[in-house]
Amino acid sequence: PPPVTVPPSPVTPPARVLTPESMNPAIRRVEYAVRGPIVTRALEIEQELKKGLPKPFTEVIKANIGDAHAMGQQPITFLRQVTALCLCPELMKDESIPSDAKERAQRLLSACGGHSVGAYSASPGVQMVRENVARYIERRDGVPATADDIFLSTGASDAIVNILKLLVSGEGSQRTGVLIPIPQYPLYSAALAELEAVQVNYYLAEERCWALDVAELRRALAEGRQRCCPRVLCIINPGNPTGQVQSRECIEDVIKFAYEERLFLMADEVYQDNIYAEGSAFHSFKKVLMEMGPPYSAEVELASFHSISKGFMGECGLRGGYVEVVNMNPEVKAQLAKLVSVRLCPPVLGQLILDTVMDPPKPGEPSYERFQAEKEAVLGALAEKARLTQEIFNQTPGIHCNPVQGAMYSFPRIELPPKALAAAKVLGQAPDMFFCMRLLEETGICVVPGSGFGQKEGTFHFRMTILPPTEKLKILLEKLSTFYTKFVKEFS
Amino acid sequence: PPPVTVPPSPVTPPARVLTPESMNPAIRRVEYAVRGPIVTRALEIEQELKKGLPKPFTEVIKANIGDAHAMGQQPITFLRQVTALCLCPELMKDESIPSDAKERAQRLLSACGGHSVGAYSASPGVQMVRENVARYIERRDGVPATADDIFLSTGASDAIVNILKLLVSGEGSQRTGVLIPIPQYPLYSAALAELEAVQVNYYLAEERCWALDVAELRRALAEGRQRCCPRVLCIINPGNPTGQVQSRECIEDVIKFAYEERLFLMADEVYQDNIYAEGSAFHSFKKVLMEMGPPYSAEVELASFHSISKGFMGECGLRGGYVEVVNMNPEVKAQLAKLVSVRLCPPVLGQLILDTVMDPPKPGEPSYERFQAEKEAVLGALAEKARLTQEIFNQTPGIHCNPVQGAMYSFPRIELPPKALAAAKVLGQAPDMFFCMRLLEETGICVVPGSGFGQKEGTFHFRMTILPPTEKLKILLEKLSTFYTKFVKEFS
Repeated sequence: PPPVTVPPSPVTPPARVLTPESMNPAIRRVEYAVRGPIVTRALEIEQELKKGLPKPFTEVIKANIGDAHAMGQQPITFLRQVTALCLCPELMKDESIPSDAKERAQRLLSACGGHSVGAYSASPGVQMVRENVARYIERRDGVPATADDIFLSTGASDAIVNILKLLVSGEGSQRTGVLIPIPQYPLYSAALAELEAVQVNYYLAEERCWALDVAELRRALAEGRQRCCPRVLCIINPGNPTGQVQSRECIEDVIKFAYEERLFLMADEVYQDNIYAEGSAFHSFKKVLMEMGPPYSAEVELASFHSISKGFMGECGLRGGYVEVVNMNPEVKAQLAKLVSVRLCPPVLGQLILDTVMDPPKPGEPSYERFQAEKEAVLGALAEKARLTQEIFNQTPGIHCNPVQGAMYSFPRIELPPKALAAAKVLGQAPDMFFCMRLLEETGICVVPGSGFGQKEGTFHFRMTILPPTEKLKILLEKLSTFYTKFVKEFS
Repeated sequence: PPPVTVPPSPVTPPARVLTPESMNPAIRRVEYAVRGPIVTRALEIEQELKKGLPKPFTEVIKANIGDAHAMGQQPITFLRQVTALCLCPELMKDESIPSDAKERAQRLLSACGGHSVGAYSASPGVQMVRENVARYIERRDGVPATADDIFLSTGASDAIVNILKLLVSGEGSQRTGVLIPIPQYPLYSAALAELEAVQVNYYLAEERCWALDVAELRRALAEGRQRCCPRVLCIINPGNPTGQVQSRECIEDVIKFAYEERLFLMADEVYQDNIYAEGSAFHSFKKVLMEMGPPYSAEVELASFHSISKGFMGECGLRGGYVEVVNMNPEVKAQLAKLVSVRLCPPVLGQLILDTVMDPPKPGEPSYERFQAEKEAVLGALAEKARLTQEIFNQTPGIHCNPVQGAMYSFPRIELPPKALAAAKVLGQAPDMFFCMRLLEETGICVVPGSGFGQKEGTFHFRMTILPPTEKLKILLEKLSTFYTKFVKEFS
């Protein structure tokens, strides 16, 4: 985005201290499309519906954000039982709660200050939870992990921003540059704007199912080096908003590239449990890095992020997550520990939910079967909805949707007729924003324009979650396809 | 603190991308004494005790942080019942939970997306909770408040940093300066270091019970104007670490000063329920501002902060709080709404606890009596411990402790003999850090040196919470006084 220049101060002092002109220009430049103008309008329309204003629909469907519970997904019982007991230990005597949930709650409370979730935890998180995260990573990857490298966080966003904060330095052409995928999850562009780091775009190959290509990384790096000092490479796998799952070979190539070019790797792996396509599998950057052996395993610096907001649990509102740092300089790690201490600690209940996800009920334990059944039901339904999305969209001429191999979103490309582009221009809107606004006004469906994530010049997309219940999603996809066809006709 | 200069890059590139030399120098400058080196050492000693290393004490007592539950304070039952039900609605059938807690839980769930605390809330918080905060402020102040001006947050710290972020701009001598009290709560100095804003110190008058003096504000402002553009004035009332409660007259003077000098006011009022001294009362900046009438009430910009971590509830681990903005430019308010949207939402359970605090059980409701009894027990005990602290410290020659009128800390001044200063110098420690470290090693008592909060040159203090249970606190205070006397003798 072009830098916003601060207008000169008016001759007479403004009435207020804090004005649009005097405020922090870096904050002005921040954009976050997932909760941007389209969502503001969606909330207004909801109010209008409540007031009885006539609309061609009866409800707003917010397919703009990966918010599973808001779309009706049920919480996993074991997670909620454990945390409810931690909040209110009086309920231990309730006979409807299974004994393993009670034992877990007791164990977690014994790790909390004063046996209360109301006490601050240690700033990097409750030690027992950090240990359980390390054990989870070891089981996942088959390589060692240590609690010392795990920092719990207020959702993954918090951890991502903290790692970026450490990495930003230098002025002018020496300012830290950060390579991010396009399309990207707009937390990255927002954080870089706020931290005044330089965004360096590398493009995913839509024609090859949003593959990440090292030649393109090389091009982007060379471009970035002309205006800043690129030191960080961000990868989102499985992709958000693009839904691709990276192959092991691709991850190896990226690691070699990072090693050769001396880039710090940030691997956003919050969708690691959300893999749907046959033949796709999640490979963590940590596992691949360690299995590659020296010099890579000893020298490439990596931060890998995870969250309780996605996967099968979808506990967005609890705000939990973690970062594992690999090969981080010990002094810098101490600086990270200091930095997180200023905010005291991540929300303790988010940490405890994370514990139950990292260390779920085992076969034979009272909660095991219910837990497994609930988890499989969620993941099975998501896989079905991923398939359905791609299928229905691709039946519509002008809409092109890559397979949703993982994550929670489709990111279809839409062809827009020249007259629509002209109409958007008149309104000063991006063409896909114009399309999405019209879609919202006429159908109540709220999706996010591709321009909010970035896309190749001249292409148009939108991001839509696959989260609504299957039957509702089907209707939604058909409504959307019908609207698209009508829209194209209107502007042809 | 003196600026840390970044050393020049070595001739051969360092092995790692992120090193102490290459990292963000602003983050290196951050300090946060409340969880600083003394706490690191306290945690080590706890491990040493566990391993059976012989020590002259059997447990570490962490009086370094306002963490009520960790010190044994019991949670307020109603708050926990409501939130446990919200987490696990299956428990609605539990007969031990009173009906008003169940009704509140139902009402709160109906305000959550998909009736689940696992859904993201709106970024400024659950609308119903914001409304209840506004009603609470109206009852407290007797002047109107609106939910539109309330932004819920991840503890007060989060909100304070967000408001500061908006206010920081300019370069060199035009860089935003922020006036903060000395002694201060070190979140302020840490946030200013990170945001590269200029810290401008004004000193509280220890000899007049840490009073805030407008003449001193004027001196500090003039000093600040020589090196930056002071635009913000932070006040902590009741004081942290100093425990004073400001008079209404003093608040009026501060508001007039802010009006005349065009300063944005930030009022940290998280201890508003913690008032103990006879004759002291809490006056909110909002109330005083509004009652002063025009031009003040229409023009002075104010942000007031509150938290669920303090008061009678002490729910630090839940991470909840809010800021009310007054007279904020509407466009800037929209920018604030955008800024908070990037982090999606504050932890939902913290928001729900806040709701129960803002709108507690009313007379006649089933939970009323238990709620009142628990609340009064906590506040009554704190008042007694505040009195006790002052009394015991002042019996010891060389220790001078102002009355703890409010908040949760004493901040006694200690005289240190010249030989102790010399011994500290040899170790490269601040003299009060030297004292506090010795205290920790010999008694297991962990308090924070005054140098972590700032103090007048040549004076020495420490901050200690009044939170341990009364009998334990008494022993603690006596142990500390005895140690001090021994320490002075040793270095005389």
